This record gives sequence, structure tokens and C-alpha cells, in this order.
Amino acid sequence: MIFINRNLTLLTDFYELTMMQGYFKNKSANKSAVFDIYYRKNPFGNGYVVVAGLEQVIDYVLNIKFSKEDIDFLRDNFDFEDEFLEYLRDFRFTGDIYALKEGTVAFPNEPLLTVKAPIIQAQFLESAILNIINHQTLIATKAARIKQVTGDDGISEFGLRRAQGPDAAIFGTRASIIGGFDSTSNVLAAKKFNIPASGTHSHSWIMSFESEYEAFYEYARCFKNNIILLLDTYDVLKSGLPNAIRVFKNLIAENKKPKKFGVRIDSGDFAYLTKEIREELDRENLYEAQIIVSNDLDENLILHLKNQGAKINAWGIGTKLVTGDGNPSLGGVYKMVAMENKTGGLEPKIKISENPEKISTPGFKQIFRIYNKDSGKIKMDLLALHDENFLGSENICVINENISWRKINLDLKNYFVKPMLEKIIENGRRVSEIFSVCDIKKYCNEQKETLWDEYKRIINPEIMFVCLSEKLFNLKQKLLNKSY
Amino acid sequence: MIFINRNLTLLTDFYELTMMQGYFKNKSANKSAVFDIYYRKNPFGNGYVVVAGLEQVIDYVLNIKFSKEDIDFLRDNFDFEDEFLEYLRDFRFTGDIYALKEGTVAFPNEPLLTVKAPIIQAQFLESAILNIINHQTLIATKAARIKQVTGDDGISEFGLRRAQGPDAAIFGTRASIIGGFDSTSNVLAAKKFNIPASGTHSHSWIMSFESEYEAFYEYARCFKNNIILLLDTYDVLKSGLPNAIRVFKNLIAENKKPKKFGVRIDSGDFAYLTKEIREELDRENLYEAQIIVSNDLDENLILHLKNQGAKINAWGIGTKLVTGDGNPSLGGVYKMVAMENKTGGLEPKIKISENPEKISTPGFKQIFRIYNKDSGKIKMDLLALHDENFLGSENICVINENISWRKINLDLKNYFVKPMLEKIIENGRRVSEIFSVCDIKKYCNEQKETLWDEYKRIINPEIMFVCLSEKLFNLKQKLLNKSY
Repeated sequence: MIFINRNLTLLTDFYELTMMQGYFKNKSANKSAVFDIYYRKNPFGNGYVVVAGLEQVIDYVLNIKFSKEDIDFLRDNFDFEDEFLEYLRDFRFTGDIYALKEGTVAFPNEPLLTVKAPIIQAQFLESAILNIINHQTLIATKAARIKQVTGDDGISEFGLRRAQGPDAAIFGTRASIIGGFDSTSNVLAAKKFNIPASGTHSHSWIMSFESEYEAFYEYARCFKNNIILLLDTYDVLKSGLPNAIRVFKNLIAENKKPKKFGVRIDSGDFAYLTKEIREELDRENLYEAQIIVSNDLDENLILHLKNQGAKINAWGIGTKLVTGDGNPSLGGVYKMVAMENKTGGLEPKIKISENPEKISTPGFKQIFRIYNKDSGKIKMDLLALHDENFLGSENICVINENISWRKINLDLKNYFVKPMLEKIIENGRRVSEIFSVCDIKKYCNEQKETLWDEYKRIINPEIMFVCLSEKLFNLKQKLLNKSY
Repeated sequence: MIFINRNLTLLTDFYELTMMQGYFKNKSANKSAVFDIYYRKNPFGNGYVVVAGLEQVIDYVLNIKFSKEDIDFLRDNFDFEDEFLEYLRDFRFTGDIYALKEGTVAFPNEPLLTVKAPIIQAQFLESAILNIINHQTLIATKAARIKQVTGDDGISEFGLRRAQGPDAAIFGTRASIIGGFDSTSNVLAAKKFNIPASGTHSHSWIMSFESEYEAFYEYARCFKNNIILLLDTYDVLKSGLPNAIRVFKNLIAENKKPKKFGVRIDSGDFAYLTKEIREELDRENLYEAQIIVSNDLDENLILHLKNQGAKINAWGIGTKLVTGDGNPSLGGVYKMVAMENKTGGLEPKIKISENPEKISTPGFKQIFRIYNKDSGKIKMDLLALHDENFLGSENICVINENISWRKINLDLKNYFVKPMLEKIIENGRRVSEIFSVCDIKKYCNEQKETLWDEYKRIINPEIMFVCLSEKLFNLKQKLLNKSY
């Protein structure tokens, strides 16, 4: 179990349990229901999100089991009925889950994940799987934004000490790699997910020696292949840099040139300092020496530093990445979209609200992604009912809810259509492949290639159309106009 | 183990391990070193922080153990030397830790926690304990700000689905209670920390029935003692409220009045709706019915709603609490302040920086909190060397670094002095008491009472003086003026 031997079954909001007892008592527990996870607004002003966390959702769902201790706790502290608590002993998930593959780019108001299961089970999943998807999708998206501005520079995740608890560090690292990061400082995450770890030394290493030179020299003696020296313990240009150069030149003179070497600074004026450092290193013929910076960086600051001509080869990015600074939650929700009716059919359901953006799209749905045949880029996403099928069609009629007076007809000579939600759990059993985090990162890179550059801008991106099929649009209208 | 059977030993930044190998190889591993955790700037513009997370720090520190699998991972993937890896097998923490008790109010640039241990051990702790303290202290502080504006209203933590992973939810709940919250929706956190859990039903409960009235009725039938009905599935005033009133009045007519009952809304215009709802409930003589709201609330929005005369008895607060919205990391750092020198003495160390606020205060220190004898309120905090003692003194000379030309003499007839850092781990063994989360919350309430109201404002609070003793000030000056 990826959550490392923890029983997280009780990681749920109390009301899921009260509702479960309600369904249990009124005999509706086994009626089939369909719930969607979706979010309403792209975080950080981005044009898309990178879906992440699915592997941990599967891990959670397949390992649900109320222990005796859990049930005793519920009995001793709350008003639950014995019969219901007895039922929980053998409670398992036996339904189906459909989801976007991890690393997929996705857009507001489309299902990232759909649960179809007896309502008592589907209801139970809500809190934990929202927690997981909201977190990792947020961080993968922030990582993708940073990757967007760093291009081919190295980027390493440094966020452990500022992440919101151990899991936020561990799974934040995972999400960062999916979104485009190269490596991490977090050893446990590196081990769990088989991703590269890196790191050298901190100020305290320097301070533990009588002199900075001695500290650098000893470090170089210990780590022959990868020597990145931190310059800003005392004074970057007057002390750190000359001492580092002396060490590098001595190593080269002794024929011990490290495979990788360079300097890091963690404070000060990066634009000014890195230009000075680069000039000085080049003057000493240390062209290969890397310059790495770290200190509360994010995509905006990086863009500014690049614009100012800072000479930086690699970036260590922590706090603002792993906390999703600026927008620290995705806001994904879990809404019922259909439920079994008295005749056994699946009846679409809608959640109405005085906040129009809180109105849900009813029905058991599929996302059909429509690509330009020529470019391979996404034209739009089409939400349709799950059993709609456009394979044989010559045209698709799509409706954008914001301009619903105008139906759009897409000629399928120019486009191809791909259903995006895949069945990952069937009858409580996993039916999807397991991908390594590095494979997911690769897939995510391919996914980003399906977006025109205009959708990848970090400010004011183009907004992807997420349209409804004519059938789904008509269904939604019907339910909206029904009186309650 | 509170982290539920997880081995988190590898939850560390890679550079801690490279430095450890360095100390190991150059034979300095067992030299004594002192490190402080402190932060530089109050989060959210608050006047103080509420310290939290210590219990998990202790749990982590006492359970450090590299497993065979951990060591194999390090050997197979990196350049570590066998002798060092062999050494890690029996690696344990054998040093001392001093800390502020959980629930203590604290201020920038004073040690929240001090580690005194062989440098190889003290270095190793850095990443994990920063992660824990930064997270929980941040959330406890956010909770205290919310408590500051909600007064005697009920406040419940609802953040599980939006927290940054399972731990952020579990320990975020713990920190919220410490900061002043009454209860949580998170069942696992409730179980682990013995705190009250609450919650009733969501929109999906309503949507699973043919009618809203039927859903309310069935809910009331299941849960006799605590019936909070959610009004905003279809239309709060036209449908939700009349249906809820009908259910409450029927229960009362049948002599089944619940112990606690009321309504909740999760969307819409709270100021307007809650006034309408209160009026209607009162008109029906349902004076006891509670009105609960939830929907992206924080301390500012709550203040505005109160100012607009919203009629709200209790608040469910999730996203913006558990993510520390607005300031999602505390920014605590871990800096070496002293190290054993060649003669075996403890030599104070300083970290210089071109960013003046990044200069550390050297030495193994104690925080002496100075209280007004009359009011019991805090006058200031005094940082002094650990062995300074003001018990017999008539006066204390203190220096504020920002106005260091002016020494202040405090006449101890008017003040009393309390050392704040307590030894919690000695020679690797716990020596501190275990407190329940509810006890810590109580202590935190007492702590808040030691602050004048001016320091508790949520905007533009008074800034607490954190001064240096004359001895410490002189030491810092000496090290600052030393050339490197």
C-alpha cells in the first residue's frame, strides 16, 4: 500500500458516515449512484490543470477496511446503530471508477474522475479522494507552470521543510515530477517513487569548520562526482566565490575534475550576483561550472530573473511550489450526477444553486477530446452522455453553455475524437495499468504538446472550450427548468 | 507512534545525508552543536504565532531508525561509502531538545525549539522537524485568527477535502483545535486526538430522494439528537427552509424535539439569507434552531458578515483554514548557533547574509518572557544566553536591535521573568509530559490572555519587542564585526 501501511479508512468527513447510516436504514444503500469529481476554476490563472493523484486514490479505495478499533471508536463516541456498525465490518468498495490518466491536461467543469457504485459506497469515497486529487493536481499544475518558464534549465523540488506535513512533502514531490520537475531533495519521495534525488550541503556545513575554504575542501574530498558549493554563508563575491574557485582549480590541477561541479546561492540579488559569478568563473576557464539558485522562487520571479539576464543553470524550488502559493487549493468537488430510480434505471441528477457556477452538469458522462487532424492540437473538449458515440458520425453538434444560442457543427473530416475517461476500477478490482512516476511525467509532456502555446501562457491564457453534446445540453436544460 | 506505523526516517533532504557522511569522514560527527528553529516574519500579518507540532517532532525524533531497505536504497542509488552506511544502521538521536510548549504564543526571531546534540544527529533532524513545526504552527495561528473574530460562536474545522494530502488534513485538524476550534469533520483526526467530530449531510443526501422534504424527514428519523438540515440544494428560502421548518414542527408536535437542531447553508448571500432564515425560524417559535454556514470562509469574510448583521450561530471553516490561505507557509528555518571547538567548549556561531533579516542570533539561548506584575500581560521577550539568570537581579538591561543605541533598564519590582524553553528530550529520552490536544488548547487560551488586545488585532497588531540581553547583544556584535 503506497500510503505505507496506514489504515486511512476513517479519513472521512463525519457526515459521510451519518449519510451512510441513513442510506442503510432506509434501504437505499445498494442503489446505484454516479458521482463526478470536477473543479470550477483553473488555479493560478493557468489555462489547464495536470491531473495527478490517481494512483493514491486507487490505493485508498482498494484498501478500505474498518478495523475493530475503528468500529469501537464509532460505537463509543457517537449515536450510530449497532446494525449499521456491524455492516461496516465487511464494508468494501465493489463499484466502478473511471478517470483521466495521471498527467492528462484537463479543464474546468469536466469530470476528472467518475464513481459508479452503490450509493453507500460512492458516498463514502468523497472526502478522501477529493483530498488526494485536489492536492496532487494542484501541485502538478504549479510545477507545469514553473516548467513552462524554465525551459531546458534544471529544476529540482526543494520543498520538504515548508510543505504542509509529511504527505504534502512526499506526494507534493510526486506531483512536481509529474508536472515537469527533474529531481527532488526529498529522499523518502525519491525512494518511494524511484525519482532522482540531489543535494549537497547547507550553511551549517560551512559554519562547522574554522574557515570556508576548509569546509569547501573537505566537501570536495568527500564527494568526488558532484560538487556544488554554497557561496552565501559569509559573503558571496568576496569569500564564497574565490574559495570555491580555488577548490575547483586545485581539483583540476590534481586531475580530479568532478563529473559535475558548480556553485549555489540561497540569498542576495540573484540577477546581479549570478552575472558576476558567471563572469568570474568564465575568466578562470570554469565554463562547465553550474550556477544554481534557491530562495522563495516561483514562475513569476524566475521569468523576471531571466528577463534581467541572470546567469542561472538550475533552480531549486521549494516553498512556493509545494504549497501551491497564490492558490493553495484546487477546489475540486464531488457531486452526484445520477442515481438509480424506482424502475432500476439511472436517473440524471442536478445540483441547483443561487451561485450559477455551482450548478452541476447532470448524467453519467464521458469526455470526448476533439483534436485537429493536421496539428494534433486540442480543438475542444466535449462532454456527452457516457453511451453517446461519435465514431461513425460525419459531424458533431456541440454547444458552448456560455453562447448556447449558437450551435457549432464540427466536420469530422478535420478532427478526430478520443474518449478520455478510462475505466480504472471495475467491480472493486483494479483494471488499469500501473505507471511509474517518470512514465507519467513523459505522458504529461506529450499531453502539453497537444495544447497550442496560447493555452500554456502563465498569464491570460486562452480558455479551452468545454462544450456539451446536444443531448446533454437538452438534458441539463430540462432538469434546470423542472420545479422543485 | 503517532505517525501511525510509518517509518519516516528518510523524510529528509538529501543534503543532510551528504553532510552527515562529511562529518563522519572528517571525524567531527560527535562534536556537539546547537541549532535553533525560528521564523522571521509573522504569517497573515498576525502579531504572534501559536506554536504547534511538538508532539509529532518528539514522535519522529524518538523513532528514527534506518531500516535495511533504507540503507540498501542509499547504497544502490548514490555514492555513499560503506562505512558510513554501516554507521547508519545503529543511528539514533542521543541529544537534548528544548522547546516552547505547544500552544505557547511566540514571536519572530526567537527559538521555538533548540537542538543540542552531536552535529551528525542535530544536522539530520533539520528537514523533518521543520516540516512538522512549520505546518502545524502555521495552521494553529490561522485558527487563532479565526477564533479572534468568531468569539463565542461555534467553529468547526471542515478542511479534509481541500487539505494538501492526508497529513495536512489530520495534523491541520490537530493544529486548528489547538488554535481555538471546537470540533472537526475529520473522523480520523477525531479518533487520533480525541476531539469532537460533527457533521450531518450533504447535497447528495437530498438528491438521492424524490423530494427535499422526504430527505429531511428521513434524516430526522435516523438522527434524533442532532438534526442540522442543509437548505441550499434547490432553493434556500422557497424550498429548503419551509421543508426544514415543517420537519422541526412535526418533531415538536410529536414530542420528539431533538437536543440540537438547525439549518446549514453552503452557498448564496449569507448576510441576506441568514437574516431571512432567522426571522422565519423565530416567527415559527424555533428560537433554538441554529444557523450554520460554510463556504470558503476566513477571518476577514466572517468579520464582514458579522458587520452586516448576519445571523449565524456557528461556522464551518475548511479550505482557507487548513491551507493557511494567504500565507501558506511559515518559513521557519533551522540554523546552527553554536558548535564545539577544539578545546571542547561551545563556540557561538553566526550566519551572515546580504539580506540583513537573514542574519542569525548566535549562541545557545533561552527566552525569558517578561510579564507585568499587575496585569500578567507580556511586556516583552528577552533572548539571553542559556546560562544567564535573572532570578536574583533587581534590574535587567535589555537591547532592542532596531534601536540599539538605547538600552532599556527594567526594574524587576514591576515585572516577573519566566524562562520559556523547556527541556523535552534529554540524552535521547523524552523528559516532558504528554498533553492531550484539548489540554493544549486550554493552555493556548491562557497564553492568549497574556497578550494585550492590541497584539491580537488581525490587522496592524502591535509588534512585540523581542530584545537581547546585553551579553548576547555584545556577542552578536563581536561576531558580526569579525572578518571572514
